[in-house]
Amino acid sequence: MSKSKKMVYFFGNGKAEGTAKMKEMLGGKGANLAEMTNLGVPVPGGFTITTETCAAYDKAGGKWPVGLKKQVEDNLKKLEKAMKASFGDHDSPLLVSVRSGAAVSMPGMMDTVLNLGLNDKVVDGIIAKTGNARFAYDSYRRFIDMFGDVVMGCDHEHFEHAIGGLKKQRGVKDDTDLTADDLKELVKLYKAVYKKHVGKTFPQDPIKQMELSINAVFGSWNSSRAVKYRELNNITGLKGTAVNVQAMVFGNMGDDCGTGVCFTRNPSTGEKEYYGEFLMNAQGEDVVAGIRTPVPMIELNKVNTKIYKQLTGLMDKLEKHYKDMQDIEFTIQQNKLYILQTRSGKRTAEAAMRCAVEMVGEKLIDKKVAVSRIEPAQIDQLLHPHLDSKAKRQVIATGLPASPGAAVGQVVFNAEDAEAWKARGKDVLLVRIETSPEDIGGMDAAKGILTQRGGMTSHAAVVARGMGRCCVAGASDIEISYAKKQMKAGARIIKEGDWITLDGTRGEVLLGQLPLVEPKMSGNFAKLMSWADEIRKLGVRTNADTPEDAIRARAFGAEGIGLCRTEHMFFEGDRIWAVRQMILSADVYADLRDKIVKLEEQGDLEADQKKELAGLKKEFKVPQAEFEGALKKLLPYQRKDFVGIFTAMAGLPVTIRLLDPPLHEFLPQDAKSQKEMARRLKVKPAEVQAKVEDLHEFNPMLGHRGCRLSVTYPEIARMQARAIMEAAIIVAKKRKKVLPEIMIPLVGAVSELVFVKKHIIDEIEKVFKEKKTKVAYMVGTMIEVPRAALTADEIATEAEFFSFGTNDLTQMGMGFSRDDAGKFLGEYTELGIYEKDPFQSLDQMGIGRLVDLGIQLGREINPKLKVGICGEHGGDPSSIEFCHEVGMNYVSCSPFRVPIARLAAAQAVLAEQK
Amino acid sequence: MSKSKKMVYFFGNGKAEGTAKMKEMLGGKGANLAEMTNLGVPVPGGFTITTETCAAYDKAGGKWPVGLKKQVEDNLKKLEKAMKASFGDHDSPLLVSVRSGAAVSMPGMMDTVLNLGLNDKVVDGIIAKTGNARFAYDSYRRFIDMFGDVVMGCDHEHFEHAIGGLKKQRGVKDDTDLTADDLKELVKLYKAVYKKHVGKTFPQDPIKQMELSINAVFGSWNSSRAVKYRELNNITGLKGTAVNVQAMVFGNMGDDCGTGVCFTRNPSTGEKEYYGEFLMNAQGEDVVAGIRTPVPMIELNKVNTKIYKQLTGLMDKLEKHYKDMQDIEFTIQQNKLYILQTRSGKRTAEAAMRCAVEMVGEKLIDKKVAVSRIEPAQIDQLLHPHLDSKAKRQVIATGLPASPGAAVGQVVFNAEDAEAWKARGKDVLLVRIETSPEDIGGMDAAKGILTQRGGMTSHAAVVARGMGRCCVAGASDIEISYAKKQMKAGARIIKEGDWITLDGTRGEVLLGQLPLVEPKMSGNFAKLMSWADEIRKLGVRTNADTPEDAIRARAFGAEGIGLCRTEHMFFEGDRIWAVRQMILSADVYADLRDKIVKLEEQGDLEADQKKELAGLKKEFKVPQAEFEGALKKLLPYQRKDFVGIFTAMAGLPVTIRLLDPPLHEFLPQDAKSQKEMARRLKVKPAEVQAKVEDLHEFNPMLGHRGCRLSVTYPEIARMQARAIMEAAIIVAKKRKKVLPEIMIPLVGAVSELVFVKKHIIDEIEKVFKEKKTKVAYMVGTMIEVPRAALTADEIATEAEFFSFGTNDLTQMGMGFSRDDAGKFLGEYTELGIYEKDPFQSLDQMGIGRLVDLGIQLGREINPKLKVGICGEHGGDPSSIEFCHEVGMNYVSCSPFRVPIARLAAAQAVLAEQK
Repeated sequence: MSKSKKMVYFFGNGKAEGTAKMKEMLGGKGANLAEMTNLGVPVPGGFTITTETCAAYDKAGGKWPVGLKKQVEDNLKKLEKAMKASFGDHDSPLLVSVRSGAAVSMPGMMDTVLNLGLNDKVVDGIIAKTGNARFAYDSYRRFIDMFGDVVMGCDHEHFEHAIGGLKKQRGVKDDTDLTADDLKELVKLYKAVYKKHVGKTFPQDPIKQMELSINAVFGSWNSSRAVKYRELNNITGLKGTAVNVQAMVFGNMGDDCGTGVCFTRNPSTGEKEYYGEFLMNAQGEDVVAGIRTPVPMIELNKVNTKIYKQLTGLMDKLEKHYKDMQDIEFTIQQNKLYILQTRSGKRTAEAAMRCAVEMVGEKLIDKKVAVSRIEPAQIDQLLHPHLDSKAKRQVIATGLPASPGAAVGQVVFNAEDAEAWKARGKDVLLVRIETSPEDIGGMDAAKGILTQRGGMTSHAAVVARGMGRCCVAGASDIEISYAKKQMKAGARIIKEGDWITLDGTRGEVLLGQLPLVEPKMSGNFAKLMSWADEIRKLGVRTNADTPEDAIRARAFGAEGIGLCRTEHMFFEGDRIWAVRQMILSADVYADLRDKIVKLEEQGDLEADQKKELAGLKKEFKVPQAEFEGALKKLLPYQRKDFVGIFTAMAGLPVTIRLLDPPLHEFLPQDAKSQKEMARRLKVKPAEVQAKVEDLHEFNPMLGHRGCRLSVTYPEIARMQARAIMEAAIIVAKKRKKVLPEIMIPLVGAVSELVFVKKHIIDEIEKVFKEKKTKVAYMVGTMIEVPRAALTADEIATEAEFFSFGTNDLTQMGMGFSRDDAGKFLGEYTELGIYEKDPFQSLDQMGIGRLVDLGIQLGREINPKLKVGICGEHGGDPSSIEFCHEVGMNYVSCSPFRVPIARLAAAQAVLAEQK
Repeated sequence: MSKSKKMVYFFGNGKAEGTAKMKEMLGGKGANLAEMTNLGVPVPGGFTITTETCAAYDKAGGKWPVGLKKQVEDNLKKLEKAMKASFGDHDSPLLVSVRSGAAVSMPGMMDTVLNLGLNDKVVDGIIAKTGNARFAYDSYRRFIDMFGDVVMGCDHEHFEHAIGGLKKQRGVKDDTDLTADDLKELVKLYKAVYKKHVGKTFPQDPIKQMELSINAVFGSWNSSRAVKYRELNNITGLKGTAVNVQAMVFGNMGDDCGTGVCFTRNPSTGEKEYYGEFLMNAQGEDVVAGIRTPVPMIELNKVNTKIYKQLTGLMDKLEKHYKDMQDIEFTIQQNKLYILQTRSGKRTAEAAMRCAVEMVGEKLIDKKVAVSRIEPAQIDQLLHPHLDSKAKRQVIATGLPASPGAAVGQVVFNAEDAEAWKARGKDVLLVRIETSPEDIGGMDAAKGILTQRGGMTSHAAVVARGMGRCCVAGASDIEISYAKKQMKAGARIIKEGDWITLDGTRGEVLLGQLPLVEPKMSGNFAKLMSWADEIRKLGVRTNADTPEDAIRARAFGAEGIGLCRTEHMFFEGDRIWAVRQMILSADVYADLRDKIVKLEEQGDLEADQKKELAGLKKEFKVPQAEFEGALKKLLPYQRKDFVGIFTAMAGLPVTIRLLDPPLHEFLPQDAKSQKEMARRLKVKPAEVQAKVEDLHEFNPMLGHRGCRLSVTYPEIARMQARAIMEAAIIVAKKRKKVLPEIMIPLVGAVSELVFVKKHIIDEIEKVFKEKKTKVAYMVGTMIEVPRAALTADEIATEAEFFSFGTNDLTQMGMGFSRDDAGKFLGEYTELGIYEKDPFQSLDQMGIGRLVDLGIQLGREINPKLKVGICGEHGGDPSSIEFCHEVGMNYVSCSPFRVPIARLAAAQAVLAEQK
């Protein structure tokens, strides 16, 4: 070895220079190959070029660092020795694969070249050695195709065109119908295609082939699809990809050969069983790409019991070693088993739960590891709806149940359309002949995925499971035409935009929009969640406005309500008419009230002022009757709502937010509804219209809402406070524990809080006096205006709790209106200006600083200040981790996100312990 | 004296217990009386109850603190001794005044009771002593009126009613026509009025009178008008009012008596002259309240030369002692001069300038004191418009030139209307018979003030000068009817809402709306400003969008442009059509451009993708021609604008902000104009309408604007950058120094800045190459999104300067839309939730923290980072002081505010030195 840095690590002959711990350096695949080799697993020998070398190659503008050439040559020699074969040799030829492999798995994202080392001389040697000319020429023509396409940029379609022509000429249908001679002819045709499109002859020098292929793998690290994949999956901080050069073994050398993929447990259900698929006489790529539909693994026992036993033995060994469910690629070459790859298997949430819980039972892992094994976002899958069993199912096609759950949507036939339609608010199903890494964005946008070709381990199936999308794969009885944007299912034609339903659990395609039902959670789920609860420190509450939501969330494990919005209570049924009556008289009411109060406070009145006061009081009677009358009508409705919610959440705290939206939201905006309102409230239509115009706001987000309404109309806050406490007393009298927390929204200054709180407490004291009983309660505030966070030390002198309203805090802090940002936010994340949509995942760098500052300032004044979050970020795992880090007491999220939050909160503790 | 705390301070007989330094304790008036007494000025003796005592009284719920009674009694005895008279004594009666006096002057805001000590016995004694029964009964009936009104809350109108009845009965017109017997009768009538309304008989015990009066003064501290005055004038931190009990001297005991007010310099012009007014045989209150119009002071020399000489000698002594222009109240009682009060005189800005500059010339004060003497907000007066000399003046009434300047507005007849009309955006003139402290709010709301009665020192005149409002006082030839809301000027009737013009410099009331012209600045102004410039550390720039504005601001002393908005350049003349053409094609253009770029970047295209690319490029041609064509049309206009501005500001930096408003602001909103646009741009009206709808935003404030436009359409930023640099090169070639600073608005994340800056620099480099020359420039950003301030450390890595856009920072940070907040912000300041309108004066507690944080974070990265402010706060004195404190480099404000900013910046330094 030269004096230069070690850039290449060898594995083979039962020994390897690397280990499983060297993922950063050798990539996941390289580290695993080294580890397996050391474990005694029969892995074809090879060597791994480090990820650092990829970075150095990039940095040098696409040049090999000094010393690399020598190290590659040295390792190639070692490999030749280990495999007892020589690169480019006629008699004992060594063929290799060149594959990428980063520290984090990026399936199918980067380049791979197989059968490297073949040339005109070697192909003859292989024929001589195997006596299988068909296999030799088939491998050779595949190699030219792949090398041309992947390494030299000569489109695969050109080769397809050539083989298509030849098949036509020969009058055959399938590739397998071509004879050895046909394939020999095809090699010639492919070389011509190569020369035409690449502009050079196909390189016969294997070393040259290898160098170019290594370069292609290095280069693929920064291909646009790989970059996009990393973006989509938030993969950062990697140096590059490693390059694995490994001796080829062949599953397509004859009927004693085969290739397959297997899982140590069922990746769909998590059941402990040998699970997988294989194809005899096939290359591994055929299985992964879904080109041929493979056979279940159990069949291997019939085909070759010895190999089957050896394989299952190795599966047990590997799972025990890695303490996780393994996804293993294997090849049988002339009755000899090789393991090509093993990695943690992707799995559905259900499978992840079952595996984690059962592995704890098997003492393979402990509870903490089990909890850390579940991707919180994945839990969504478990909570996703499935098809109502009573629904009339009109099955139009069947395929493989590739990813569970069900989805209803309109059909689109490419990824771009899927993204575009979704952006327009449509539910779409992505239908493809087969999917490829370019389709990632569209798969993410779709509610479900249907493919015509491919198995349970095809690209579509693997990715859909990872994403938690329902998927039916390999539904071979459909026929897709991209050109016509339609698919045939039997005689039926489904066009773009037509509605279908997918059942990913059964693998069925159903006509129309079928009803979906909510899922129930398994015992594994409950067990794992209880372990998460043992670990987490953050409380988990829910955002719920109705008793129904509250009950559901409680079933999901919510420990209280963190946000109960009261505005919907103003909309329902007849209430809206009382609200509208109130709004019509509101400003006249407030104006007269202020004038009267001002004069009365002044005291020392002159005669004309006394006359004025009397006049005002007379004038006040009508608006007062209307305004206060409307509030009186609303009170019993509100009280009833709160009784329902308090009863549902008995024993748990309930945070109720006072009325938040601007009043104009309660008025009808179109002329017809305005007329109806006028008729109903017995006023002139022009009056309604004038009120709508008067209340119009240029920026309602920054307008007259939240506690600002309570400052202008403290009567509304008083009515709500009364409804809350009267309800609390009713429920408390039934011996149920009630813990009401009254939350004042949109506070920007402590003085607002003081003002509104004074009215609330005064009203509550009245209620207590009237009812001759008391209920403990708290008054706190949302921190959603940046100024509130900035002056949290002042606000903490008056607030008994803080609840960060990160939706508004994000809108104001970043200056984005959520309703309008759609027009440019997509471009922003695409250009990488913001890594993530800040409305989905809290902008920790910016808004997070504001949250952190608010908590620090607040706790300086009141170290025991209760702090939570009630924005939608409360259900986002990475935001939850942040909430844990900054020391919040709880997060609050939508009912379906409660389990995610429980898990994410536990994982935040585990991450901290690391 | 008892052991209790000293609550009462005596002055008299040439010696006082207090000094001028004890303002906090004795109030301004009490401290001055003590100081004057010690100086040997002939002040009637008396004693002062401390402000602390007022606070203690308040705290005790309106009870005298222990020991006060004794101290008052002891001091009363001392006073009797000093004045050689006795309280309540028939033979040698002592009468006293009881007046309020806080540490900060609050003219007319709190209560005063005069002639205290009169009763049925004393009135006889006075008659016996003076032989003037008319004076005695007049004083007595005045005392009953004042005591009844001020102390016991029996309205003055009741007494007026009684005197009116008597005059009618006697068939006389004026009060002075009533005889001594009439007045004696009136005392009876007044006592009856008192008894009827108070419910008790008028107290004959002088000690009781004094106690009740002291209580009334204490109580007046928290009267609503006093509280409002303190709010309006931002007076905080005071304990209460002191109470001054002082021996009465009488200006109304006969023709050898008189009373007056004088100033050591002319408070209107600042000229060094004896200035003032007096009335013989009158009470001081008659002058101040403007009930009789007094005589100029020079006349006193004729009436009584000896007294005139004594008075002017004392005026010189007092000005020299206090080193400031004095406002002095005096009374002549039977040919003996008494000084009742001296204080710093309120003055116009012009007078303030002249006094300050001339006093430096006289070596009375130094430059720093001179600079600190000018209230920055007052400078506005000097810059206020006056009437065009060529205007056709139709004078309908004349009065006193009480406060200089001119004003045009619609007439209103009470303060409440003035406030209400102003709130509706109207220019109003407040017309009153005479003003009183209750009118303060309305006077502030009015452009100018006109009174029917009152002199140069009347309430209206004093307050108007202080506020910088133009005022014509004592226009006795008008006749106001509050009931009819109109005034007569001769035969002409002016109704509420009619337009008139006031010339406060000449004292004329003119019909209609006359043209106003801009003022020129005096030599004193220039001199004082140059002293301010020597002291200040902050630079002062201006916000200017046109060469005209730039030239004006430069004349006012602007040292550069801190904010040149470019959007108006998009509106003028024909440009708007190019802009609208650009907008029509913008999104199709951007969409196709992105698709083409994406495919081209991908490189490795398949056949159908290549076909797609060709198709896109074909499709792109039309929108490209329209969009880029429109930009090409705009370029020369923009370039010309910048040439003008760079030329005007040669040698000084010019900060140019790239296009900021959302595009929909450039489209017509009504159907008719949309049709016109369609016709002109040769598209279908529906297309225009669709575009308007498409661009509609729910919260435009938080929408697609600022640098977000440059992210979507970097071509616009490039066009602007090109126009700026081409203009810079043109001007630089004329050997004028150009310092362009390109400012990117609405940056929230450093990544936005990086993106836009890259495009700008790239375009500028192209310009430099084309023109074969370079001009130095900077690229910086506005800090106006809270997130930008929060991540200023990141942003400072890319920005060469920060300019705080505190308008938007306030809107987003406080969550107030400026357009909408009007609906509740008034209520907010009224309720004291925010002390000041945060759009006028920076909210230092909240938004200020964000500014401070932004500067600190930015300077951590780049200690030399240039930081300025370009919100409207840049012209607000208290905000400027804040900008100085947090270490900004400059403030930028509207041209007229530049002198204010220069002065405020200097005062910030002086305040810091204290």
